Amino acid sequence: MYIRKQRLLTPGPTPLYPPALHAMMASDIHHRTEDFRRVYRSCLADLKEVMATANDVLLFAASGTGAMDASVSNLFSRGDKVIVCCAGKFGERWAEIAKAYGLDANVLIVPYGQVVSPAQVEAALAAEPATKAVFVQASETSTGAAHDIRAMAAAIAKTPAVFIVDAITGLGTMPLDIDGWGLDVVIGGSQKAFMIPPGLAFLSISPKAWKLAETATLPHYYFNLKKEKKSGDAGESSWTPSTALILALAEALRYVKQIGMDKLIRNAQLLAEATRAAVLKLGLELFAPGSPGSSVTAVKAPAGLDSSVIVKEFRSRFGAIIANGQGSMKGQIFRIAHLGYFDFMDLFAVIAGLELILKANGLPVEFGAGVAAAEEIYQKASQQ
Amino acid sequence: MYIRKQRLLTPGPTPLYPPALHAMMASDIHHRTEDFRRVYRSCLADLKEVMATANDVLLFAASGTGAMDASVSNLFSRGDKVIVCCAGKFGERWAEIAKAYGLDANVLIVPYGQVVSPAQVEAALAAEPATKAVFVQASETSTGAAHDIRAMAAAIAKTPAVFIVDAITGLGTMPLDIDGWGLDVVIGGSQKAFMIPPGLAFLSISPKAWKLAETATLPHYYFNLKKEKKSGDAGESSWTPSTALILALAEALRYVKQIGMDKLIRNAQLLAEATRAAVLKLGLELFAPGSPGSSVTAVKAPAGLDSSVIVKEFRSRFGAIIANGQGSMKGQIFRIAHLGYFDFMDLFAVIAGLELILKANGLPVEFGAGVAAAEEIYQKASQQ
Repeated sequence: MYIRKQRLLTPGPTPLYPPALHAMMASDIHHRTEDFRRVYRSCLADLKEVMATANDVLLFAASGTGAMDASVSNLFSRGDKVIVCCAGKFGERWAEIAKAYGLDANVLIVPYGQVVSPAQVEAALAAEPATKAVFVQASETSTGAAHDIRAMAAAIAKTPAVFIVDAITGLGTMPLDIDGWGLDVVIGGSQKAFMIPPGLAFLSISPKAWKLAETATLPHYYFNLKKEKKSGDAGESSWTPSTALILALAEALRYVKQIGMDKLIRNAQLLAEATRAAVLKLGLELFAPGSPGSSVTAVKAPAGLDSSVIVKEFRSRFGAIIANGQGSMKGQIFRIAHLGYFDFMDLFAVIAGLELILKANGLPVEFGAGVAAAEEIYQKASQQ
Repeated sequence: MYIRKQRLLTPGPTPLYPPALHAMMASDIHHRTEDFRRVYRSCLADLKEVMATANDVLLFAASGTGAMDASVSNLFSRGDKVIVCCAGKFGERWAEIAKAYGLDANVLIVPYGQVVSPAQVEAALAAEPATKAVFVQASETSTGAAHDIRAMAAAIAKTPAVFIVDAITGLGTMPLDIDGWGLDVVIGGSQKAFMIPPGLAFLSISPKAWKLAETATLPHYYFNLKKEKKSGDAGESSWTPSTALILALAEALRYVKQIGMDKLIRNAQLLAEATRAAVLKLGLELFAPGSPGSSVTAVKAPAGLDSSVIVKEFRSRFGAIIANGQGSMKGQIFRIAHLGYFDFMDLFAVIAGLELILKANGLPVEFGAGVAAAEEIYQKASQQ
């Protein structure tokens, strides 16, 4: 065994921003003190700032799915009619949550790798004027595809329905004009573009969505949006917060603000563009060529080679953890992430590693060809 | 500004092994307790094991130069005749220490990039039979050249002189058979192949060298080899130890033992071989082609391009800190390190970055060509 650094290169958890990790060492702090309230308030304010919204932003000690659960259990009543856009594993999760709470969901299913079109959403809304909400993933992490959130929002804004967007891997990887487009609930998680470990979820909520909370009757306790809003206004969390992660988030948000959310998004977009150029140059196929997102790029394993072999060899040869396909896609695709704390030097290394793994498995690969394609994208971008 | 990770890629401090860093968080420990003695003893025992020597090993809260100082001030007397091999900045340091303590040094100087030959040492010993010691760098970090320690040792072993080897960047990057070849003092530092921050130095000392300590009259206090040996036997340090670094060293040594010192050396050698192949493919010249070491590869800047530009662009474009030339070599060479916690994914990224920097500065570079040359070396090695 030679040196193989552990490199966490998955679309969540993503690589960690070291100063945020170090900030967790200051966790010998009590959460009901002004010292901690100062940090908690800065997280809420900075989240609002980087999400660029005037809507309320609420934080939870939970993973992203917790905020998805909260947006259903707090805003709806049993039997409410909703539309669920389902383009992969995380679309299926929306459908599961809707089912668990007894909503009457019209699930618009497209095959993995494709996306639900704004026209489909518009048609479904027209077919059922009583629809109370549309649920979607901005970026469907399981396939790497991105939905056209802007066009969907335009269709939904004309109706009484609210638009609930799982942007867990969308935030920081694609433009999301929450207030301008009318995104009523936008959900994020700590372990994505925000560069810290899993354990924190947050959401923004519009006045239109708050209105639903007035009449909703589904039971809930831990996830209580109204209570959390009141707590947040006082600089606190309703329940014991995840102090270490809040300290980390505060530090990471300082970094995100310093870079600027637009540049963070452009960073992911450039890495995604360079990845697509590199894998195409190596003769591989994209899994979602029609609507590629920039949080993660899903690549089809070449014929005769299980993608699990590629994933395993990244680990055994280079210590790098990259993502396999999820669910039924396992073995068929592998996924190269771009969101958050990723840079071009990460990508050059990943592409060189991929070239070696493909060649070792008998594929006709020209060493350096994929890296060169990525370098071309870097060069073009750096000249702009 | 996009994401640019800070990457410490210099030949010391070298990249840090994260579990060793995390171990420093347990520094709320007192150094005169059995808990700490257990850690200190394990460091001394593990250093002996990875250095593969039966000689005593002593540890100091100091940088490597402290152990160089200790080996002079503890073993010699004013006016003692010694030979200093000087092939770069660190050879000059031996000469400075010898001068500071009033030794009568015959300094064998060769131009930067070359090495002192075993024949030169043999001739100098023959010319002065009263020579008490020969000082050398195993790896001259300023130029990337490595001395032929084995052949020098064979020549010295026939004389009463002791052989004092600065192996600060030699340990873990080249074979050094301390007992078999007769290396009387071998000096190492924490911030090199041992993957932790600067602040600890250590040395092994042979019975032949201990004899010199009996008659040496140079004054010293902090660096007291005999006292440190007695303290170490009791599982302690003579003075307050650098507790955080000792905790880190214990963790790093566990990792080095797990990899095996031979594999750690082979890791550096392979990275050095791949680096040489890559830079030659890119049309660059090696600075020490005759005797390239594996701790660091010094590369000549191409005609018309100051190496400081290359170093600065690694920082500004990629957040990577690589080494410039030192002293008079500044601006003329840049140095790519290999020692310790470096792997092939680091190297692929560095070579891709170098390709982009050279091209951006007008050099005729074929993107991917250097990376491909490095990949060839990886592939060959992984098939063995």
